[in-house]
Amino acid sequence: MTACSPETIQLLKRVPTAAITGILLKKYGLRMRAIPGIGPIDPAHCRFVGPAFTLRYVPMREDIALTVDIGNPANAMLQATQQIPAGSVFVMDMCGVGAVGGLGDVLTTRMKVRGVVGVVADGGMRDVSEIRALGMPTFCKGPAAPASPSALIPMAIQQPIGCGGVLVFPGDIIVGDEDGVAVIPAHLAAEVAQMGVDKEALDGWVRDRVAEGGDILGLYPPNEANLAKFEAWKAMQG
Amino acid sequence: MTACSPETIQLLKRVPTAAITGILLKKYGLRMRAIPGIGPIDPAHCRFVGPAFTLRYVPMREDIALTVDIGNPANAMLQATQQIPAGSVFVMDMCGVGAVGGLGDVLTTRMKVRGVVGVVADGGMRDVSEIRALGMPTFCKGPAAPASPSALIPMAIQQPIGCGGVLVFPGDIIVGDEDGVAVIPAHLAAEVAQMGVDKEALDGWVRDRVAEGGDILGLYPPNEANLAKFEAWKAMQG
Amino acid sequence: MTACSPETIQLLKRVPTAAITGILLKKYGLRMRAIPGIGPIDPAHCRFVGPAFTLRYVPMREDIALTVDIGNPANAMLQATQQIPAGSVFVMDMCGVGAVGGLGDVLTTRMKVRGVVGVVADGGMRDVSEIRALGMPTFCKGPAAPASPSALIPMAIQQPIGCGGVLVFPGDIIVGDEDGVAVIPAHLAAEVAQMGVDKEALDGWVRDRVAEGGDILGLYPPNEANLAKFEAWKAMQG
Amino acid sequence: MTACSPETIQLLKRVPTAAITGILLKKYGLRMRAIPGIGPIDPAHCRFVGPAFTLRYVPMREDIALTVDIGNPANAMLQATQQIPAGSVFVMDMCGVGAVGGLGDVLTTRMKVRGVVGVVADGGMRDVSEIRALGMPTFCKGPAAPASPSALIPMAIQQPIGCGGVLVFPGDIIVGDEDGVAVIPAHLAAEVAQMGVDKEALDGWVRDRVAEGGDILGLYPPNEANLAKFEAWKAMQG
Amino acid sequence: MTACSPETIQLLKRVPTAAITGILLKKYGLRMRAIPGIGPIDPAHCRFVGPAFTLRYVPMREDIALTVDIGNPANAMLQATQQIPAGSVFVMDMCGVGAVGGLGDVLTTRMKVRGVVGVVADGGMRDVSEIRALGMPTFCKGPAAPASPSALIPMAIQQPIGCGGVLVFPGDIIVGDEDGVAVIPAHLAAEVAQMGVDKEALDGWVRDRVAEGGDILGLYPPNEANLAKFEAWKAMQG
Amino acid sequence: MTACSPETIQLLKRVPTAAITGILLKKYGLRMRAIPGIGPIDPAHCRFVGPAFTLRYVPMREDIALTVDIGNPANAMLQATQQIPAGSVFVMDMCGVGAVGGLGDVLTTRMKVRGVVGVVADGGMRDVSEIRALGMPTFCKGPAAPASPSALIPMAIQQPIGCGGVLVFPGDIIVGDEDGVAVIPAHLAAEVAQMGVDKEALDGWVRDRVAEGGDILGLYPPNEANLAKFEAWKAMQG
Repeated sequence: MTACSPETIQLLKRVPTAAITGILLKKYGLRMRAIPGIGPIDPAHCRFVGPAFTLRYVPMREDIALTVDIGNPANAMLQATQQIPAGSVFVMDMCGVGAVGGLGDVLTTRMKVRGVVGVVADGGMRDVSEIRALGMPTFCKGPAAPASPSALIPMAIQQPIGCGGVLVFPGDIIVGDEDGVAVIPAHLAAEVAQMGVDKEALDGWVRDRVAEGGDILGLYPPNEANLAKFEAWKAMQG
Repeated sequence: MTACSPETIQLLKRVPTAAITGILLKKYGLRMRAIPGIGPIDPAHCRFVGPAFTLRYVPMREDIALTVDIGNPANAMLQATQQIPAGSVFVMDMCGVGAVGGLGDVLTTRMKVRGVVGVVADGGMRDVSEIRALGMPTFCKGPAAPASPSALIPMAIQQPIGCGGVLVFPGDIIVGDEDGVAVIPAHLAAEVAQMGVDKEALDGWVRDRVAEGGDILGLYPPNEANLAKFEAWKAMQG
Repeated sequence: MTACSPETIQLLKRVPTAAITGILLKKYGLRMRAIPGIGPIDPAHCRFVGPAFTLRYVPMREDIALTVDIGNPANAMLQATQQIPAGSVFVMDMCGVGAVGGLGDVLTTRMKVRGVVGVVADGGMRDVSEIRALGMPTFCKGPAAPASPSALIPMAIQQPIGCGGVLVFPGDIIVGDEDGVAVIPAHLAAEVAQMGVDKEALDGWVRDRVAEGGDILGLYPPNEANLAKFEAWKAMQG
Repeated sequence: MTACSPETIQLLKRVPTAAITGILLKKYGLRMRAIPGIGPIDPAHCRFVGPAFTLRYVPMREDIALTVDIGNPANAMLQATQQIPAGSVFVMDMCGVGAVGGLGDVLTTRMKVRGVVGVVADGGMRDVSEIRALGMPTFCKGPAAPASPSALIPMAIQQPIGCGGVLVFPGDIIVGDEDGVAVIPAHLAAEVAQMGVDKEALDGWVRDRVAEGGDILGLYPPNEANLAKFEAWKAMQG
Repeated sequence: MTACSPETIQLLKRVPTAAITGILLKKYGLRMRAIPGIGPIDPAHCRFVGPAFTLRYVPMREDIALTVDIGNPANAMLQATQQIPAGSVFVMDMCGVGAVGGLGDVLTTRMKVRGVVGVVADGGMRDVSEIRALGMPTFCKGPAAPASPSALIPMAIQQPIGCGGVLVFPGDIIVGDEDGVAVIPAHLAAEVAQMGVDKEALDGWVRDRVAEGGDILGLYPPNEANLAKFEAWKAMQG
Repeated sequence: MTACSPETIQLLKRVPTAAITGILLKKYGLRMRAIPGIGPIDPAHCRFVGPAFTLRYVPMREDIALTVDIGNPANAMLQATQQIPAGSVFVMDMCGVGAVGGLGDVLTTRMKVRGVVGVVADGGMRDVSEIRALGMPTFCKGPAAPASPSALIPMAIQQPIGCGGVLVFPGDIIVGDEDGVAVIPAHLAAEVAQMGVDKEALDGWVRDRVAEGGDILGLYPPNEANLAKFEAWKAMQG
């Protein structure tokens, strides 16, 4: 697992997930690196960048669900609350079950105290009005009142997981914004960040030209003449 | 059907659905008593508590759908609008069909006039901007312009129904909030209400301790030492 | 394809999709003319009326997706951006794929420049915060960061398409509001518009009577006595 | 409920479901009268015709599921086994749950003893190898080992139900064959039967002409010249 | 569209779809070239190879479905029955609708008369027992009694289509066997055929070695030593 | 993990999954211990009993899928082929992906050589005609030509997994028959086996009485009088 530098994290805060997924496809051939089927609890607070800390749930069995108490030191969720580093994004494989909540207000509060910057799950969340009040950016399938033992058991932390059909390794860089959640392989993050910042500048310039009435042909993607104009414009901006 | 006292209704207004579903599972072994796959038309007005008054739809047949007019005294929806008592939650089994609307502005107005406190359906709703303006808390699969005869026929009132895969008896206590809709068997409502109020106080105290930096281990769930601290705190509050 | 007059467009702005779908069913036997499973990016800006300009996507193949560049004159999306007339609603058959975005900020800007009044797709959209800022009414399955080449290829414009299981011919009149999107066959639009305006007046009057405490029976639908009262009231309004 | 004569039942045994659904659409405007998503346990024994006897399941609740014993006289399934008349098709609304079995070997044996001619459910079946050995024509979503109390409770008999999204009234005529299960409204059965027998003769003749190399145009559907040839052929057959 | 030689068609009859999809992925980066969610009507007769002749359905509209008669020369299905060349595989985009049948006995008979070698659709088929009797290899979602006008309208022939989420161009080579249906881009077919025949020989040799007790490691995939043994064995076979 | 004795395995071969799931629910409160949504490749060879050996797949990433070769000693599938003990049932968590095959002919041959008695996956299988010829009892979602790297990567062996939403621990006893696949927690297997054999005897006797015309009431479940008759009958059998 390649650690991602603070500079890369900062750069990625300026790059939308739409740009990131485009770079991952065109440059690296990674086709679907956004998690489908989930959305933010609070669209006004849905932006974050950080390395993934993963938790894997498995389907419950009635005789285990109620006894695998989070008060048990072996409980994987408890371990997550004890070990997750500040700056992390907490990513849960909830087996796609939206009918129960992976985190509620107490555990989200704990994650906030530990400095977690975002939460992502392919399942539900409970106490969503409190989560919204805490200001924790959280992506999930939607609100769900029942606690996770109704359907799931936390099994292990820091394993590679699938979240909404997307592979997430511990340490992958997770980016959230209004368009959803993108997953960047850790070893590509620095390069994607730099390319992303450049692409955002170009895209913004193209958007402005199109807003002025410019034809899509030649602008999107830009031909050489327009690329030259963009470079000139960029040079003028300093 | 055990009637639920006004005191129980009042107590339950202080208990979130997240706590209710937890009690139903841990105390009574009732695992999934929240209706999945639906959400509020207006998240700012989604709280209610009341006994269920049920309507059962069946799939339409073209020659019946247009003639089973709501103007016909035998129409089950008409019967509902005539018989539903004030304080009720109107719960509809729409066979999971989200593409049509179970209620629109006229019938929701009627329900409001009759004192209905909430509406729940595993299907769509139409005239949602008017429903929002009326302030009627309504949970459904989402907006849908077509009226129900496009796909469904109202067949009977006050039968046991499935709503989103959850059994609802007439008289069951239905609770709505930001996390969704919980269904409490009528005969358990009083006990659940009392346990819920107690659990909310404890959970709030735990949340505050965790927010102060307390470890999850020993707090959630609380061990004996922390339970004693909570009891002392509660005694101090009066 | 019958062109729809500006007067019809203006009339339809006063008719909700709930009324339109009702008329299409009861008068013409057209049962499901609303597109299910999609919603507005911005519920505060979701109203529009205009003729459909259609684009058909097909599933991608890896060797084509990246080379069928929008910069290629034969690209169907490019053709749409060059040819779509002002006042149109841009309707895309995205094969129901919500995991990628059919339009982003650049193309939506272009559509705005061309005078497009609304966008409808049975797939995702990217750059949704920019789309919201542009004020373009857009219905889709939700936000999706990946661009369409991750899963789809634009194949042709102005063909009859299916969008969310609903047939849309180029020139059909598309109406959007809080309840969703309705599709009116072009040759019926003028008649539906007139009937819709009349029905809205009646429905509003019925709603007011029900709000005053009137019984549903005899009002909804109105019997002859109530219809006479409505006509008298309408005459008084001038 | 209009009873269906034995003659009609006999005629319908010669009419495939493909012809029946075609007549219901073209003659009566009933669009989807076949139950989708189910298949026969034994394709070699899937043909039957008879009036529907219905059972309605609702979702289980853990405290009821195990106590609503079939040994209880109030149990709806027990009532079905006591009351269903010989010649009936037993149709169950299983809420679309394929993960549990609606009938097993004991109850299917009982149904056979009572003279039931077919079983249809929008859920699973258990003991399917025994059901196959008993020779009871049975359509369902597939095999499922768990008994119905794992997910469902039998609630009532002889109510109108939805089965796979298709409305079934008690007494509707249910027809099964290799193409699936069709539902004929009781009052139309006699007419559909007669039209079906005629249509089958015509279709067979058309098929033979096409097999000889005849063009589809003019044969399918037949034009007047070909209809005359068919009538002449039919007259020759006696 | 590159025409595919008879020699390539012959070679491909010896190559299973499992090998074809593997070559398309490893050699050309084409990831999912098999149509998911469909199966053969008769597993004993499911093998075919031929170029695609495509038909595109769109969702029905009630006023069109019954009037767009196959007896109308403009009907796309009629055109298909008149124009499809011998040796073709008839591939239908049925919008994924399994509840209706794309072909029945008459049209399948016609296809057989014209020399069609296989039928593939992402929807249902009717008259399946007759189709089985005709011996026409047919892949679909399963039997469905209603004819296609219940839900679909044939719109156009020989357009690029999506079938079960897989892009199919007219002329692509379609291969069916017990594992399903693979779609080979026309211009790659000759190369895939040759590679496939070679791979089949190798895989058979590997399978025999594993059956004798050989370790997977070094055999699957074969290392150089084992490749040399295979080449020696192949040389001995002549 | 409690090892299961050979005697228990032998006993369980006489107990159908329908009986096993009933015992798990009624005796232990374990509600859904059968894997839904899968079926046998060959219904004539679908019976097996053995302890689970598990493999966990995760979603693929394009840059890993092709390089994580099964020829790499770290590959989890390779490890499975080297380590799985004779008598095991090989259970794969394929993330529910039916569009690719978890095993093909070579690996199934290897499993057969190692003495594996059954294969279960919540995904597809390839080379199904060869698997059928090998006589390996295999449950899956159906045939799928593409190899697993098209969508999945084998990640780990012998972890607890979810398979079709059912928790499976390594060592759990897996039983397959015509009704599907049941999962028995290892520590309950001996008791379930004994109860199952007893229950089968009783159920057979009940079935015979019902076949003779006995009423369900009193027989199913049997009342005391009938239980006494059964015991007498059993004593007579020796």
